[in-house]
Amino acid sequence: MNFIAIAIIAAVAAFAASYGNSKVISKTLESMARQPELAGQLRSTMFIGVGLIEALPIIAIVIAFLLM
Amino acid sequence: MNFIAIAIIAAVAAFAASYGNSKVISKTLESMARQPELAGQLRSTMFIGVGLIEALPIIAIVIAFLLM
Amino acid sequence: MNFIAIAIIAAVAAFAASYGNSKVISKTLESMARQPELAGQLRSTMFIGVGLIEALPIIAIVIAFLLM
Amino acid sequence: MNFIAIAIIAAVAAFAASYGNSKVISKTLESMARQPELAGQLRSTMFIGVGLIEALPIIAIVIAFLLM
Amino acid sequence: MNFIAIAIIAAVAAFAASYGNSKVISKTLESMARQPELAGQLRSTMFIGVGLIEALPIIAIVIAFLLM
Amino acid sequence: MNFIAIAIIAAVAAFAASYGNSKVISKTLESMARQPELAGQLRSTMFIGVGLIEALPIIAIVIAFLLM
Amino acid sequence: MNFIAIAIIAAVAAFAASYGNSKVISKTLESMARQPELAGQLRSTMFIGVGLIEALPIIAIVIAFLLM
Amino acid sequence: MNFIAIAIIAAVAAFAASYGNSKVISKTLESMARQPELAGQLRSTMFIGVGLIEALPIIAIVIAFLLM
Amino acid sequence: MNFIAIAIIAAVAAFAASYGNSKVISKTLESMARQPELAGQLRSTMFIGVGLIEALPIIAIVIAFLLM
Amino acid sequence: MNFIAIAIIAAVAAFAASYGNSKVISKTLESMARQPELAGQLRSTMFIGVGLIEALPIIAIVIAFLLM
Amino acid sequence: MNFIAIAIIAAVAAFAASYGNSKVISKTLESMARQPELAGQLRSTMFIGVGLIEALPIIAIVIAFLLM
Amino acid sequence: MNFIAIAIIAAVAAFAASYGNSKVISKTLESMARQPELAGQLRSTMFIGVGLIEALPIIAIVIAFLLM
Amino acid sequence: MNFIAIAIIAAVAAFAASYGNSKVISKTLESMARQPELAGQLRSTMFIGVGLIEALPIIAIVIAFLLM
Amino acid sequence: MNFIAIAIIAAVAAFAASYGNSKVISKTLESMARQPELAGQLRSTMFIGVGLIEALPIIAIVIAFLLM
Repeated sequence: MNFIAIAIIAAVAAFAASYGNSKVISKTLESMARQPELAGQLRSTMFIGVGLIEALPIIAIVIAFLLM
Repeated sequence: MNFIAIAIIAAVAAFAASYGNSKVISKTLESMARQPELAGQLRSTMFIGVGLIEALPIIAIVIAFLLM
Repeated sequence: MNFIAIAIIAAVAAFAASYGNSKVISKTLESMARQPELAGQLRSTMFIGVGLIEALPIIAIVIAFLLM
Repeated sequence: MNFIAIAIIAAVAAFAASYGNSKVISKTLESMARQPELAGQLRSTMFIGVGLIEALPIIAIVIAFLLM
Repeated sequence: MNFIAIAIIAAVAAFAASYGNSKVISKTLESMARQPELAGQLRSTMFIGVGLIEALPIIAIVIAFLLM
Repeated sequence: MNFIAIAIIAAVAAFAASYGNSKVISKTLESMARQPELAGQLRSTMFIGVGLIEALPIIAIVIAFLLM
Repeated sequence: MNFIAIAIIAAVAAFAASYGNSKVISKTLESMARQPELAGQLRSTMFIGVGLIEALPIIAIVIAFLLM
Repeated sequence: MNFIAIAIIAAVAAFAASYGNSKVISKTLESMARQPELAGQLRSTMFIGVGLIEALPIIAIVIAFLLM
Repeated sequence: MNFIAIAIIAAVAAFAASYGNSKVISKTLESMARQPELAGQLRSTMFIGVGLIEALPIIAIVIAFLLM
Repeated sequence: MNFIAIAIIAAVAAFAASYGNSKVISKTLESMARQPELAGQLRSTMFIGVGLIEALPIIAIVIAFLLM
Repeated sequence: MNFIAIAIIAAVAAFAASYGNSKVISKTLESMARQPELAGQLRSTMFIGVGLIEALPIIAIVIAFLLM
Repeated sequence: MNFIAIAIIAAVAAFAASYGNSKVISKTLESMARQPELAGQLRSTMFIGVGLIEALPIIAIVIAFLLM
Repeated sequence: MNFIAIAIIAAVAAFAASYGNSKVISKTLESMARQPELAGQLRSTMFIGVGLIEALPIIAIVIAFLLM
Repeated sequence: MNFIAIAIIAAVAAFAASYGNSKVISKTLESMARQPELAGQLRSTMFIGVGLIEALPIIAIVIAFLLM
């Protein structure tokens, strides 16, 4: 039962981070193509966003390691 | 059973925060590309929004730690 | 069985609040980009809305603590 | 079995209220941005709507307390 | 088994009423923003509609109380 | 098993009536905003429609009472 | 097992009739708003349609009564 | 087991006929509003269509009676 | 187990035929409203189509009778 | 178990053929209404298409007869 | 268990081929109606496409025969 | 259990290849109709694409043969 | 249990790679039809993309071989 | 149980990475076709994005190896 719990956390955290990041990064690419002069500002906002999105999945991964 | 409960909380909290954050951040990027002069105001609203969104998932993570 | 019940409440409450908040906040950002002069009024409505949305998930979290 | 019943009610009631409220509030924000001079009337309708939406979830929460 | 039955009724009735009400109220707000001079008539139709929508969920809640 | 059967009927009937009514009433509001001079005719058709929609859920509720 | 069978029939028949009727009636309201001079003809077609849609759910309800 | 089989057939046949009929009838109403002079031809095609759609659900209902 | 197998075949065949027929017939009605002078040709194609669609569900019904 | 296997094959094959055929035939009707002079060519392509689509469901039906 | 495995393969392979073929053939019909002079080239590409799509479902059917 | 594993692999691989191929081939047909002079280049890209898409399903089929 | 684990990995990896590749390749075809002069650059980006997408499914296949 | 846990992680991580990467890469191709002069900048952002997206799935794969 312990292993299944770790598997659920690791799998969902990986999916959550991939889903969130891909949404933000694809929006950044779309916005850069629409307004090329804002590229720098958009990319810096993207990095902040990726950091904020990955915060909780990484905490979940830490919990998975604690359960191991 | 204890571990499965922790796994459900950690996994869903990670997905919820990633889903909510990615929606808000991608909307911020889209709005910044449409109205570049509002970039500062939009980004500050984004930070408030990310904080509000992550409030309950973090409480859920705390509950997961209490169950451990 | 007790732990699973707490896990269901905490997980769904976290998802519900994240889903509701992200919808309202992303709409606020979109509306601010469309009508920048209404930014203050929109943000205050957003705070009221976030408060109303988080009311029931927080009550659910309280029930989860009562079950612990 | 008692606890699972409470968990189902609390979780679904929290999700239902968050879903309904976020739909109404985001529509209010959109309408305010389209017709700023109607802001007061829209917000008062929003408060009535939020009250009506939260009526049944709160009754469900009361039932959950009765089962405890 | 008794408690699970009550939980199913209370949870689904709360969701049904929230779903139906939020759809009608958000449509009312949208229509008010499109035709502000019809606001009174729309709001009165909204109240009738909310009453009609909540009829069956409330009967379901009564059945839940009868099962208790 | 008896109680679960009652719960399924009451829950689905409540959801069905809420879903159907909210669809018809929100369409009525939209049509009233598009053609205000037809408001009376639309509202009377709405009442007939709500009556027709609620016919079978109410029969289902009667069956639920018969099973009690 | 008998009661669950009755519950499945009554619940699905109620949902089917509500779904079908709400689709037809909301289309009638939309068409009446687009072509007010056809209102009578549309409403009579609507009544025929509602009759045809409710034919099989009512047969299903009869089967439910036969199983009782 | 016998009763559950009858319930599955009756429930799905009722849903299938309601789904199919509502799709055809709502399309008929939409087409009548777009081309009022074709109303007779459209309605006769609708009756043929409803007959063709209800053919198999009624055969399924017959099978349900055979199983009773 | 025999009865459940018959029920699955009869229910899915009824749904499949209703789904396919309603799609083809509603498209025929839409096309007739767009090009009234093609009505005859469209209706004959519709009858061929309905025949082709109902071929396999009827074979499935035959298999259901063989299992009885 | 034998009967359930036959039921799964017959049901899914019937649904697959109905789904595929209805998609192709409704597209043919739409294309005929857009370019009436191509009606013959489109209908012959439709017959080829229906044949290709029904190939595998009929093989599946044959497998179902082999299992009987 | 052997029969269920054969049923899963045959059913999913039939659905996969029908889904893929219907998508390609309906797109061919749409493209032929838009550019009639390309009909030959489109139809030959369609035949290649249908062949490529049916490759793996037929291999799956062969595996189903091997399991028999 | 061995047979079910083979069935899952064969079924999902067949569906995956059909889904991927049909998406690419239907896009090729659409693009050929929009730019007929690119037909050769598009078709060669399509063949490369189909090869890349079928790589992993065929490896999965090989694994299914290894399990046999 | 070992075989089911291999089956899950092989099946999901095949689906993931087919889904990802078909999305990228169909977008490449669409972009080539819109800007034919960029065909070479788009195709090289497509090859890089396909390589990046297939990285993890192939690692998953390797894990499946390790479990064998 | 150990093997199922590894299978869940490997399968979901492969799907997550394929889903995220395909979304970002297809958006890059679309943006390159819209603004060819930004191709270099877009491709470098794509590589960063792919790296960020694959971070957590690879950590999940590492956890899968640890469980082996």
